[in-house]
Amino acid sequence: MEKTDKIRAGDVREASRLIRSIEDSVPEAKSAIKHIYPFTGKAQVIGITGSPGAGKSTLVDGLIECFRKTGKTVGVLAVDPTSPFTGGAILGDRIRMQRHAEDAGVFVRSLATRGALGGLSKAVGDAIHVMDAMGKDVILVETVGSGQQEVEIINHAHTVLVVLIPGMGDEIQAIKAGIMEIADVFVINKADREGSGKLQREIMAMLDMSPIPAGGWRPPIVKIGNAFDPAEFEKGLEELTTKILDHREYLINHNLLGDRIRRKRTHELNEALREAILEPVLNLLVSSGELDRMLDRLQKKEVDPYTLAEEVAKKHLTGCV
Amino acid sequence: MEKTDKIRAGDVREASRLIRSIEDSVPEAKSAIKHIYPFTGKAQVIGITGSPGAGKSTLVDGLIECFRKTGKTVGVLAVDPTSPFTGGAILGDRIRMQRHAEDAGVFVRSLATRGALGGLSKAVGDAIHVMDAMGKDVILVETVGSGQQEVEIINHAHTVLVVLIPGMGDEIQAIKAGIMEIADVFVINKADREGSGKLQREIMAMLDMSPIPAGGWRPPIVKIGNAFDPAEFEKGLEELTTKILDHREYLINHNLLGDRIRRKRTHELNEALREAILEPVLNLLVSSGELDRMLDRLQKKEVDPYTLAEEVAKKHLTGCV
Repeated sequence: MEKTDKIRAGDVREASRLIRSIEDSVPEAKSAIKHIYPFTGKAQVIGITGSPGAGKSTLVDGLIECFRKTGKTVGVLAVDPTSPFTGGAILGDRIRMQRHAEDAGVFVRSLATRGALGGLSKAVGDAIHVMDAMGKDVILVETVGSGQQEVEIINHAHTVLVVLIPGMGDEIQAIKAGIMEIADVFVINKADREGSGKLQREIMAMLDMSPIPAGGWRPPIVKIGNAFDPAEFEKGLEELTTKILDHREYLINHNLLGDRIRRKRTHELNEALREAILEPVLNLLVSSGELDRMLDRLQKKEVDPYTLAEEVAKKHLTGCV
Repeated sequence: MEKTDKIRAGDVREASRLIRSIEDSVPEAKSAIKHIYPFTGKAQVIGITGSPGAGKSTLVDGLIECFRKTGKTVGVLAVDPTSPFTGGAILGDRIRMQRHAEDAGVFVRSLATRGALGGLSKAVGDAIHVMDAMGKDVILVETVGSGQQEVEIINHAHTVLVVLIPGMGDEIQAIKAGIMEIADVFVINKADREGSGKLQREIMAMLDMSPIPAGGWRPPIVKIGNAFDPAEFEKGLEELTTKILDHREYLINHNLLGDRIRRKRTHELNEALREAILEPVLNLLVSSGELDRMLDRLQKKEVDPYTLAEEVAKKHLTGCV
């Protein structure tokens, strides 16, 4: 209980320790989350996603600055890609953000992605809860990586920024189509580069293809210049901050914030159910040696995996089959 | 039963229909897979993965040619990225492969990635079973997309090709580190481009960092020239085909093929268990309105998701908690 109070008081050490436990799937992490859960739900969660090399970290760094200027406290969660085998984060370089290390209003942590995707998503959700319970007003979740992982961010964020840079080639843009549809705000980063206008036109053409209902939100496109030109960079960031706040206003005014929150909650419950229901069965199959016997039967083609799984369900499920 | 026989006889229409049912998660697909399962396990499954734009389709097209020359029949499964919302495949352009349309020894199908990643993985596994039961000697599984999805290929393939192209930038290579570790053979495609030597040195440096045990397999690096220079392109492809066959030899001679097959089987059983155990519970929660009541309780912060999930497990699991 004391730990929960410390986290609520914004204790960085205790919060960091809990995030580390979440990352390592330590059982105590779960009971800690149970304790802090009632104190969550106040922060605005902003997802930042896009291709590797799109300059997301620099952007996040700039956003921290902008939100701090308005007096808001900021949590940053950088979701790092990790090898499925070695378990070590490979993009640990968050040097730029370290200039906020002295600022008690900023809390930056990275989260490595171990094992299954479901597990990661749960860890992201729990780490957001920690920052939320700490009282951070804004939580920036930066997903490094790609594919399903990036699309997953809609399960956690109220507002999603999709960051693109000019000159990545059409095919790379095409592959990102899944991501395009989750964008609440588009950011053209490094907009001083050649191809910036072309990229903007492409995004606009894409938006035109998916008609927006009357009164709906059409994702704005914010261009941000090179960070080496501070004046231009800051101008872009300020516009971006405004659009982020506009989007929150829009969600609130159209009674849509509740929908997003409900989606987050449904997703989280789903993950918790997966863990609570599936894992005990798998653990039993492993510890009893039953899994090995099942694999042997599959090997001999005596049975197929679906029939085996149905046998297990019949044995261990009650009241729903 | 008749359908199973047709598929075993290589009937393209029946096989295509079943793959479409697998993609759509139609219940009949499962019973069809149960029937064909005993007739699977003979094909060599080769995964081809790498960045978008790396020229994987052209490579697959070339590999079809090479394997056909040796008299082997070939199945090709192109796993396409799909928007999580619209459900439509966006990279349907397989025009180059259509020149094999007249060849009864070649069967090409694409599989769109709908919904959850777990679901996709199951669909990939089942579609491989269909081609395997058809009697295809070699099955090429091309994963378009990135991240977790690509790494997933190790759960299905006996041999994994990782395709890279020169000049993609260091950051893009770094992000692919997770993929690097699943490679059995590296392919430097479009090797006529600038930076080909640099890329080769980078891969070699990376391989040097992970010591290979005595008698172990060090992934070879095969350079393949531009497809517009047919002589060079074919030379590269022939080398690649040799390395693929070498890798299979290696697995067999070191009794490792069984390990790969067991990994595939374990993964498949896992997916089947997830479906058989988790889904009935979720369906019941939805149909009984219990899920809505749970979400309301979460909304009021009366309870946290973990406690709720544990309550559900207590109610519906038997013999393992």
